[in-house]
Amino acid sequence: GTKPQAVSSSSEAVINLDHGDPTVYESFWGKVGEKCTMVIKGNELMSYISDLRKPCWFLEEELENSIKRLHHVAGNAVVDDRYVVVGTGSTQLYQAVLYALTTGGTAPEQQPVPVVCAAPYYSQYEDETDFLRSGLYKWAGDAYAFDKEGPYIEVVTSPNNPDGTTREAVVINSLADQGKILYDLAYYWPQYTPITRAADYDIMYFTFSKSTGHAGSRIGWALVKDEEIAKKMTRFIELSSIGVSKDSQLRAAKIMGVICDGYQDFESDENSENFFEYAHQLMEDRWKRLREIVARSNVFSLPKYPQEYCLFHGEFTESYPAFAWLKCKEGAIDEDCEKFLRESYKIVGRGGRRFGADPSYARLSMLSRDEVFQQFLDRLQSINNGTVSNGNY
Amino acid sequence: GTKPQAVSSSSEAVINLDHGDPTVYESFWGKVGEKCTMVIKGNELMSYISDLRKPCWFLEEELENSIKRLHHVAGNAVVDDRYVVVGTGSTQLYQAVLYALTTGGTAPEQQPVPVVCAAPYYSQYEDETDFLRSGLYKWAGDAYAFDKEGPYIEVVTSPNNPDGTTREAVVINSLADQGKILYDLAYYWPQYTPITRAADYDIMYFTFSKSTGHAGSRIGWALVKDEEIAKKMTRFIELSSIGVSKDSQLRAAKIMGVICDGYQDFESDENSENFFEYAHQLMEDRWKRLREIVARSNVFSLPKYPQEYCLFHGEFTESYPAFAWLKCKEGAIDEDCEKFLRESYKIVGRGGRRFGADPSYARLSMLSRDEVFQQFLDRLQSINNGTVSNGNY
Repeated sequence: GTKPQAVSSSSEAVINLDHGDPTVYESFWGKVGEKCTMVIKGNELMSYISDLRKPCWFLEEELENSIKRLHHVAGNAVVDDRYVVVGTGSTQLYQAVLYALTTGGTAPEQQPVPVVCAAPYYSQYEDETDFLRSGLYKWAGDAYAFDKEGPYIEVVTSPNNPDGTTREAVVINSLADQGKILYDLAYYWPQYTPITRAADYDIMYFTFSKSTGHAGSRIGWALVKDEEIAKKMTRFIELSSIGVSKDSQLRAAKIMGVICDGYQDFESDENSENFFEYAHQLMEDRWKRLREIVARSNVFSLPKYPQEYCLFHGEFTESYPAFAWLKCKEGAIDEDCEKFLRESYKIVGRGGRRFGADPSYARLSMLSRDEVFQQFLDRLQSINNGTVSNGNY
Repeated sequence: GTKPQAVSSSSEAVINLDHGDPTVYESFWGKVGEKCTMVIKGNELMSYISDLRKPCWFLEEELENSIKRLHHVAGNAVVDDRYVVVGTGSTQLYQAVLYALTTGGTAPEQQPVPVVCAAPYYSQYEDETDFLRSGLYKWAGDAYAFDKEGPYIEVVTSPNNPDGTTREAVVINSLADQGKILYDLAYYWPQYTPITRAADYDIMYFTFSKSTGHAGSRIGWALVKDEEIAKKMTRFIELSSIGVSKDSQLRAAKIMGVICDGYQDFESDENSENFFEYAHQLMEDRWKRLREIVARSNVFSLPKYPQEYCLFHGEFTESYPAFAWLKCKEGAIDEDCEKFLRESYKIVGRGGRRFGADPSYARLSMLSRDEVFQQFLDRLQSINNGTVSNGNY
């Protein structure tokens, strides 16, 4: 084989794994071909309105149906007797939920409701909560450290971004009924984690970006038990953007429909591979290759995940998260993992501090295109070699 | 002819002209056929990112090019040396501008910046400004009544929604440099109003909904002179929704491209009609028919608009706004125009109070489908008859 070398010359391209851009799935959808091609005529989807009788009046019926089918196939969420609210990605839905849970109170002098999430938490929550300095809600950081009385909102991200762990709410509050919980289940799909049950929360949301990889379409959806909450979320999206792209709604409906057809034997095709098996195999393969390199390293470590029985796969499986939560070992090289990766080896990740965690961690996307992922592994291996043996081979 | 009758039986369907849903244009796009059909393959447009080197990193290049072509064709805005920022409809852009103009200050105890617009103003501005109780900005109502010192933002909607008038800024302030102005030019297109010059403001925005009628796609765009403002607007949209549907961006690019091709003689087609002429003719025809009925009325009146030389049409033209700003004449029937239309005749409009104006006004969409517009005229005529002659014929 070729000799790995320590990488430090400026001629090496930067490997950007900062965003969770899910381009890994492009090759799958390229192979599926025609049947997932979206065709929209010039005079279609022109109205703001889909169905004024529904709480979410801009939700296209095809999308609602496909969402429910997809959850039936994946077995990851209860959809019966739930209202579906579509959003411009789950980012808009997160804010719609905050609005829905804090508006309509009678007290004019209401203080902003604290919003918390157990650290390490998704790096964008703080800015998304606080950027408009809302009088309705306010970021209050790590849920483990939260001990105030009164109303609060806890965000539970499960599997968690950045570290891939399965989570439950953690706030202990003597007036527990004052707390509202929202569940960000963006990564609760069979390719990333064992599906141990159909999630059955009052407010939970998912996104097209992470389920099938279509981030450019900006489609997310919430499943909501209470009609008033669904209506207030809809009102938020009306005031933010008068609804959600209908072109993307129908494209999402089509792509989800193709996945479901694969499992339900419609248009059966010998050459077709089912999406979740394909994606699971791919993530398993990537994680194995990454773990092999990290295991030989004196510098890095990765979280370990328990095996659990997955109802979807019908066997015990492990988690293969969308991000690697890489830790620089104590005493090794540098205590700032992001800086170490960036300055020494031109790998761009997102440092632990952004997630309310220690800078010895960095988050790296596992969803890049194949060639980028291979470059990432090669470069990481060269770091190991360069470190362990002082760059002598 | 058939005898018109006063309408009051519950068997008559409600005519909803509350929203400005631009379905009037569906028949045009239906006739254009294949060349405006959008085709998107399953593996296309999957990434969040379009071009990280641009201030608006999620803007698709095809859309930017089509937007610039369309403004060249319409002659309604200067595009050279402007940054294009795409939004989820102009609704998201309005809020992005407010954020961009009020964030990044150094004062931690900054008071919310007042936002004003001359009455009658678009009914949604107040709620869009205040629904999150932002500490950055706050709705302050009618610009004519605004006399505070200090920073402020004035929204200039021209042509105006609801009343179709051409507008300039109106706030008189001894510290004039503290005021920032944003121009909502959603209706500054040749079908609605004479194009008297290419608009050349620092911050102006337009929308796909009102220019071509594709409201369901939720695409708006701002033309911005200052790079820092463009970057802050982009940051707002990143935090709100991590960008804008790429499916809709490319669809908008395609539809705009078809319009421009029509004017630039590409793919010339004897049967093709150019969009702006078609739409102008259609609006002129609707306004003539409406004005005839209103002129015979003792109950209603409509604004008059001056003839101006339109650079696009190369002749003097009148305004044919997207909304009729109908006034119940003093002493006639009722002083609440919305209530009168709704209760007596099942025509749903939006009352003057919602626009900071007198309840003797109501706003009615002129952009409904043909059959709905015809029903509206028929019903309005029956009111005239019913009123003038006590329903005797």
